[in-house]
Amino acid sequence: MPATLATLESSRCPITRSVSLLGDRWSLLIVRDVLGGLHRFDELASHLKISRAVLSPRLAGLVDAGILERADYREPGARRRAEYRLTESGQELVPILAALVDWGRRHVAGSAGLRLAHTGCLSPVHVEMGCAAGHAVPNAQLRIDVPPGH
Amino acid sequence: MPATLATLESSRCPITRSVSLLGDRWSLLIVRDVLGGLHRFDELASHLKISRAVLSPRLAGLVDAGILERADYREPGARRRAEYRLTESGQELVPILAALVDWGRRHVAGSAGLRLAHTGCLSPVHVEMGCAAGHAVPNAQLRIDVPPGH
Repeated sequence: MPATLATLESSRCPITRSVSLLGDRWSLLIVRDVLGGLHRFDELASHLKISRAVLSPRLAGLVDAGILERADYREPGARRRAEYRLTESGQELVPILAALVDWGRRHVAGSAGLRLAHTGCLSPVHVEMGCAAGHAVPNAQLRIDVPPGH
Repeated sequence: MPATLATLESSRCPITRSVSLLGDRWSLLIVRDVLGGLHRFDELASHLKISRAVLSPRLAGLVDAGILERADYREPGARRRAEYRLTESGQELVPILAALVDWGRRHVAGSAGLRLAHTGCLSPVHVEMGCAAGHAVPNAQLRIDVPPGH
């Protein structure tokens, strides 16, 4: 029997692994906010309207997962505070966020108010799929393969 | 003050809206399985290793959200059963799954066993971002804008 999705252990799938890191209600929204320029604990808590008790373990989890890095800073006369920045791995979540924006704008009522732009020319950004042979890949031309041995 | 992410109501953001529909532990995995050819309740429950009690409300939620559609079928001599297919809106989640695969394969230990291929030429598929002016957009050249009035 050829390997198919049904024979693949769901726990070894890269989607399962990614979703288990990112698929709670807050992680991707925290990543969006850090990408959008909010770096401090209080800014994040205030924009996301969540308590310190909810935000704090999620930030720690994203640091543990190598998605955010924490750096301390201190303003004159103030106490030390933490700032969060995307790591290289965190920066590579950008296409996932861009795909969520594309889909949300088209398919979810009430979505608005956010636009992805190319820093170079300020034109709107969209997500597309391409194959190694150089073809553009429409959604209907994607197939999920499970290589032999999995 | 120009509009920035900090001034945008998080609840109106398309990422928030998408995540609130898709950001539980199971929804994207169900979509992956249906895309991968598992259409029946029992196939899905068995592959995801979840109980009927967990799967059933999630399938209903994905039908309500317009992502899956339910069709009944009956094999000779058997009782009627339900099959689930992606709607057009569900099909358009494909780039989100593809972006999760790309990221998971690169950044999450233990990811393996699944490959996205172009049905036309069987070459591997990856996700890329492009702008309306025709430029390829690297992750570091994406910016989040909030249009005036939001």
